[in-house]
Amino acid sequence: MTGGAAKVPADPLPLAQALIRCPSVTPADAGALAVLEAALAPLGFACHRLRFGEIENLYARRGSGGPHLCFAGHTDVVPPGPAEGWRDDPFSGLVRDGVLYGRGACDMKGAIAAFVAGLTDWLAAHPGHPGSISLLITGDEEGPAKDGTVRVLDWMAGRGEIPDMALVGEPTSRVALGDIVKVGRRGSMTAYITLFGTQGHSAYPQRADNPIHRLVRVLHRLTAEPIDQGSAFFEATTLQVTGFDVGNAANNVIPGEARAMLNIRFNDLHSSASLTERLHAALRAEEARYEMRVDCSGESFLTKPGPFVDALRRAVVRATGREPALDTGGGTSDARFIARFCPVAELGGVGSTMHKANECVPVQELRDLAGLYRLVLEEAFA
Amino acid sequence: MTGGAAKVPADPLPLAQALIRCPSVTPADAGALAVLEAALAPLGFACHRLRFGEIENLYARRGSGGPHLCFAGHTDVVPPGPAEGWRDDPFSGLVRDGVLYGRGACDMKGAIAAFVAGLTDWLAAHPGHPGSISLLITGDEEGPAKDGTVRVLDWMAGRGEIPDMALVGEPTSRVALGDIVKVGRRGSMTAYITLFGTQGHSAYPQRADNPIHRLVRVLHRLTAEPIDQGSAFFEATTLQVTGFDVGNAANNVIPGEARAMLNIRFNDLHSSASLTERLHAALRAEEARYEMRVDCSGESFLTKPGPFVDALRRAVVRATGREPALDTGGGTSDARFIARFCPVAELGGVGSTMHKANECVPVQELRDLAGLYRLVLEEAFA
Repeated sequence: MTGGAAKVPADPLPLAQALIRCPSVTPADAGALAVLEAALAPLGFACHRLRFGEIENLYARRGSGGPHLCFAGHTDVVPPGPAEGWRDDPFSGLVRDGVLYGRGACDMKGAIAAFVAGLTDWLAAHPGHPGSISLLITGDEEGPAKDGTVRVLDWMAGRGEIPDMALVGEPTSRVALGDIVKVGRRGSMTAYITLFGTQGHSAYPQRADNPIHRLVRVLHRLTAEPIDQGSAFFEATTLQVTGFDVGNAANNVIPGEARAMLNIRFNDLHSSASLTERLHAALRAEEARYEMRVDCSGESFLTKPGPFVDALRRAVVRATGREPALDTGGGTSDARFIARFCPVAELGGVGSTMHKANECVPVQELRDLAGLYRLVLEEAFA
Repeated sequence: MTGGAAKVPADPLPLAQALIRCPSVTPADAGALAVLEAALAPLGFACHRLRFGEIENLYARRGSGGPHLCFAGHTDVVPPGPAEGWRDDPFSGLVRDGVLYGRGACDMKGAIAAFVAGLTDWLAAHPGHPGSISLLITGDEEGPAKDGTVRVLDWMAGRGEIPDMALVGEPTSRVALGDIVKVGRRGSMTAYITLFGTQGHSAYPQRADNPIHRLVRVLHRLTAEPIDQGSAFFEATTLQVTGFDVGNAANNVIPGEARAMLNIRFNDLHSSASLTERLHAALRAEEARYEMRVDCSGESFLTKPGPFVDALRRAVVRATGREPALDTGGGTSDARFIARFCPVAELGGVGSTMHKANECVPVQELRDLAGLYRLVLEEAFA
């Protein structure tokens, strides 16, 4: 990292390698946050290590005024899986033919290193920048996400340090760097249903009440028609029945209960509460006893077009010459927690190898991402 | 048992008790057929003990000409179940307050004893009767039914001893003795279906093919409308889904396959082949890969009104003063095997305690059943 006006861009590779070499499989930190802290402190960041439960988190801030831009990410990684699947040690951080290999290379130690490199260059060019910059880095994104971002945000809120805008460095690009800016995410909820009938002999169905027939009707009701056609920034809501189990081995016995599991990914036309009511309505139509438990891992959220999204868009156009698509597809990320507090968007590399064996990122993509993040800072603080 | 013209009716109780005291839980014979053989030989029956596999069977015939009436039944019983459920030893054959207790009392050692008693009285009155009478008693009715009635019938066919009519002594009466003559039975078949889709992430259903949704549609198609409204002598055909299993624990995974089990009880408007084709048609509508295995434990059969059913009907009217209902409801019995060879009907006691703890039969019902069987013989050989 260089101080002063940089002629040669700062290189994200050494920090990316140093982070990959810490085997920080959730919940282990394995020294990763110390590596990052050592890179940030010389840049003028006040670092706060925040331990919640068994999770290490880092909140680092430079400056105290507004506007306040927060870069959010995680140093924890998913397990490497069977060693046979890997050509090298998953934590080697080895570069071969211009490609950096290792668990976390694209999800998302590489992006953290790229941000620090882009930040270094931007700070060199704007040493007296207005506002403040922070990093919210958790060790619990790939795990239960209970003792990570959500608790750091509470801590920040308690200190009046809620940012004005947040950038999450998840690998959201689809084919080429910057082709996607993720401005929202669908919500996700899972419902566990048990429907009760009356057990009996299959030769005398009139004396029984078959819960499988009822549950088939309920699920047919719920899946026969699409829930919606999508909205301005969202794909259509999807409902998938991911489980249906009875556990009856006797072909001549009508069982007394049947269970199903449903996963719904929903857009901004719905909430987990409105969808839960939709499920209840489909179940009530059977006039049978049932139990339902709903787990919502996140409501949908959307950062509407505005100054922050526009700054990201302009940075992408300057870096790549192409307009990014504003997208809300895919799974969930910690952005769902941040969205409760401020505008948040996700912009990172191409994640085609994330969570797979031989996870990797071209070194040039890392350097391009660093350049893109530098432009994001320029545009956000312009 | 008395020989000669009887003034006092023969009593079925001692033979019923002797049979109950043999703990002949399928496949065990436990001496039951020897007890029966000892009762039949003095009445002039030629007894053939037929062992197939581990099963003991008895075929006994008196006379050699036609018409030939066969009484069919079984000495095996279902297990007594937990001893705590029984007030007495399930094999005690104890009489308390005029009621005979023990496993098999109503299903169907009591009926065998009643037939022998009725037969004894009828033989005493008609020592030179025309035609012949046989008993086909198996030890494999409550079990797999592979080495019992079906094999004895093959053996009889090989000797040219197929009867002209057969009476099965199953406890078919509903409320009062003789209120039902069972002239047929529905068929029963079970289908085991596996439907294949494409596994995937529930956040990206467009990249997967959910086999649960397809199987729900198939089952909805099969259960939404009744298959028929019944026929002249039969209830409506029923289809019950008795199993639906996926075995997927991950709420965010669309599984690759789903399995269902269906049991169909069908009347004479269908065959297992026509219903199998109906299932295939419902599955083919999905244009998905599937596997289906069908087990048919018996096609439906019907003994149409005719001389034999009429003889049974007249006997019931003489014994009880009431017309019996001709019925085809309920499960299956060995009558389905006999129906391939000759007219067969079922007439026995009230089976309200069959297969239950404290199985029992009023002694008076046994004696009434003996009288009814004597009248059946009178009418059948009139």
